[in-house]
Amino acid sequence: MIETNQKFLIVGLGLLGGSYAKALKKKGYSVYAITRSQSSIDYAKTQGWIDGGSTEEDPELIGQSDYVIFGLYPHIMIEWIARNQPYFKPGAILTDVSGVKCNVVDVIQKNLRNDLEFIGSHPMAGKEVSGVQNSDDTMFQNANFIITPTEKNTEPGIAFAKELAQVLGFPNITSLSIEQHDEMIGFVSQLTHAVAVSLMNCNDNAHLKDYTGDSFRDLTRIAKINEELWTELFLLNQKNLVREIDDFIFSLNDLKQKISDGDEQGMKQLFIQSTKRRKYFDA
Amino acid sequence: MIETNQKFLIVGLGLLGGSYAKALKKKGYSVYAITRSQSSIDYAKTQGWIDGGSTEEDPELIGQSDYVIFGLYPHIMIEWIARNQPYFKPGAILTDVSGVKCNVVDVIQKNLRNDLEFIGSHPMAGKEVSGVQNSDDTMFQNANFIITPTEKNTEPGIAFAKELAQVLGFPNITSLSIEQHDEMIGFVSQLTHAVAVSLMNCNDNAHLKDYTGDSFRDLTRIAKINEELWTELFLLNQKNLVREIDDFIFSLNDLKQKISDGDEQGMKQLFIQSTKRRKYFDA
Repeated sequence: MIETNQKFLIVGLGLLGGSYAKALKKKGYSVYAITRSQSSIDYAKTQGWIDGGSTEEDPELIGQSDYVIFGLYPHIMIEWIARNQPYFKPGAILTDVSGVKCNVVDVIQKNLRNDLEFIGSHPMAGKEVSGVQNSDDTMFQNANFIITPTEKNTEPGIAFAKELAQVLGFPNITSLSIEQHDEMIGFVSQLTHAVAVSLMNCNDNAHLKDYTGDSFRDLTRIAKINEELWTELFLLNQKNLVREIDDFIFSLNDLKQKISDGDEQGMKQLFIQSTKRRKYFDA
Repeated sequence: MIETNQKFLIVGLGLLGGSYAKALKKKGYSVYAITRSQSSIDYAKTQGWIDGGSTEEDPELIGQSDYVIFGLYPHIMIEWIARNQPYFKPGAILTDVSGVKCNVVDVIQKNLRNDLEFIGSHPMAGKEVSGVQNSDDTMFQNANFIITPTEKNTEPGIAFAKELAQVLGFPNITSLSIEQHDEMIGFVSQLTHAVAVSLMNCNDNAHLKDYTGDSFRDLTRIAKINEELWTELFLLNQKNLVREIDDFIFSLNDLKQKISDGDEQGMKQLFIQSTKRRKYFDA
């Protein structure tokens, strides 16, 4: 159980890191931050979201922390943990916010000191804007939180991740293996981003603004995308994502063929099926 | 100019027809309706959206109307107009709400009495629910309205469609040929619906509800689709839609190839391009 006298360290104070800090501070915990930019620390401090912070990888700040939350890109987090491994407090629990778990969680756990624990977690919340200034913990209120334990994790480590999600305000907390997580995320998150990006790119369509309805806007909202982060996430999950794209193209070609053939009954069946399946997601 | 003593007739009192009636009545016009179900007429009358109506194709009601707005499926509208052609008031102006214009507007105009005018129009507003009970004219406030004049149309006919859109509260009114309209709609509306349906159908994904973020929900919202209406709209615009699906699959395959190749720079370029293009649609 998270005790009130225990200390949190957030490494990487962006949109998610800042939203975590805000939510944790509301519940009265001690929260510190290490991040690249002094202005992010100053902003979070002024807002009362952190007790202190540094732009340096400060051994003292690391060493006092019972819980360390990484809001970094996966490869930067892996390097960060390797570099600062000696300074963690014995017994500290580490977690992340990464959108991909294979080649991330397993790599970190393989090289981690025996008296530390890394438990993977994925808050399925975000915005099309970044930076600590856009932090907003209300985005957790309707969102899913996924914990990805492996055989390296302990009951207390898993319990910590679950309690953290509860403290942050996530209503729905589930658990998946890292393999299940990445397969699922290849479909619900990465494929949807690939589709939105390709929809935006398949037509030089700036002049279409006056003619769009809500559907085009909805389907392309996430085509505004952080190219550094998503290139990394896509490549970390290459195999699953490529298979999901293939499955989707197969499905779209099926509909296209029925349109070409003028197969009214076949088209109606596909529409009835999509309508029925979509209804599950409203409930 | 629409005079206050002129009478509107709405044929087909569903979501859009009802919303038109509501908006027109607010401005003080006389509004009547012909629709299949008595309960729709009763509902609209109770709400004060119409002055009267009938479930019959009543020659008297048709003959008194200066403006007739069709909220019917395209093929039903074409048949309705042909069947009731003798009863229209000389000089009456007819318009519609159809999502496809070729093989609709041209067909109607070709067979129309010389003293009548049909001007095509497309209010780009809608909901995932249907029926007069869900009518809501506030959905016009941020929406686009497209007028599709042909060589058969007159200045007064076009001016009527424009004034109607203004009265209904559309902030953005534009004009396209019926060919331009259908090409554009094949992309911004029909392709997006085909994509959403195929995304929902490519994976038997009911169990994924606990793991989805907003992106999947946004991209599949329109996968709840009226199979009768959309089968008709897709087949009316078959050629454009099939070409748009092909272009989209080409674009998605390009991204897929770059993911397969681990082409980081190529992926980033696509993400930067989609981000830049999407920003036009926010302005």
